[in-house]
Amino acid sequence: MKKIIVIGASGTIGKGIVEQLGLRHEVICVGRNSGQYQVKIEDPASVQALFETVGKVDGVVVAAGDAHFGALQEMTPEQFYVGLNSKLMGQVNVALAAQKYLNDGGSITLTSGSLSHNPIRYGVNAGTVNAAVDGFVLGAAVELPRGLRINAVSPTLVDESVDTYGPYFYGMETVPVKRAALAYSRSVEGADNGKTYRVW
Amino acid sequence: MKKIIVIGASGTIGKGIVEQLGLRHEVICVGRNSGQYQVKIEDPASVQALFETVGKVDGVVVAAGDAHFGALQEMTPEQFYVGLNSKLMGQVNVALAAQKYLNDGGSITLTSGSLSHNPIRYGVNAGTVNAAVDGFVLGAAVELPRGLRINAVSPTLVDESVDTYGPYFYGMETVPVKRAALAYSRSVEGADNGKTYRVW
Repeated sequence: MKKIIVIGASGTIGKGIVEQLGLRHEVICVGRNSGQYQVKIEDPASVQALFETVGKVDGVVVAAGDAHFGALQEMTPEQFYVGLNSKLMGQVNVALAAQKYLNDGGSITLTSGSLSHNPIRYGVNAGTVNAAVDGFVLGAAVELPRGLRINAVSPTLVDESVDTYGPYFYGMETVPVKRAALAYSRSVEGADNGKTYRVW
Repeated sequence: MKKIIVIGASGTIGKGIVEQLGLRHEVICVGRNSGQYQVKIEDPASVQALFETVGKVDGVVVAAGDAHFGALQEMTPEQFYVGLNSKLMGQVNVALAAQKYLNDGGSITLTSGSLSHNPIRYGVNAGTVNAAVDGFVLGAAVELPRGLRINAVSPTLVDESVDTYGPYFYGMETVPVKRAALAYSRSVEGADNGKTYRVW
């Protein structure tokens, strides 16, 4: 049994991750405003405080972070920074801190998304950030010490979010959260390092 | 003959781009401290001012932007932001502004790099940013109006930079700037949109 932090535990995908990993592990649920502990991933001090409070763990999973959805022709640099500061740097902040708090052989699992490869209108900020997260895990994997591992899960739109985001994704096949959650399990419980699991 | 802005014109790769495109086009050389015009790509106001000064063009090429090289285990969020603010957002700033100043059918060509796919020690910031740039052009391509196009060139280490960066890239084949410059020509003079040209 591993001790695993799930950041974004109350989100649509987060709930599925907690259910899947909870079958076999001790899961610590973390959210911005909910869960056992709170963290603002965009703030390195908040991330640091989380790890100091929780202490050593075997796995850190992040299914959190925002991006800006909007038309390229009207997009401002400030709007573009939404995704950079939140979904990208938020997850990087967690990874940079986690490498010091993970037990030997522990894992970090981040979340990217299919827009990195399957672009849609209004999705350029999310697509950029998703690609960056995939690039980050590939680059970080070769430097992690002590048998630590890092991977990304790249889900497409999940069935459970069609009501909210469906119109952005017309024509794309969606997947159940249950299937996306398996990829997080594969990262946490498998032996891979530097991989992106495409759930699409 | 097209009118093409090259930002980073005095850099190692920039010089090759200017030479290649200069064979057939009017090239406007831009740099941080050199060239016909100066720009600080990290500053949207500076980018805006450049386009207002130069006016309508047929192509914009960027071969500029910094990333942080250093060990993952010691990397701070501030250091990670070096690449995000410069090589990533610097180029995004140019693209967001360029879409308004390009003539119909014009092109934007950005620079990523092979570390997105071939990670090296100390290269995680550059790898992340390179992947992000590739993701950006893919996402932006589907939204550009008026026949505008956007592509990225992803060079590996060029022969001419081996003296400076060689030790980071031991074992990797390098390419002459001349070969990398061809990919920029392909983006500017071809019909592609949303592509990343791997020069490796």
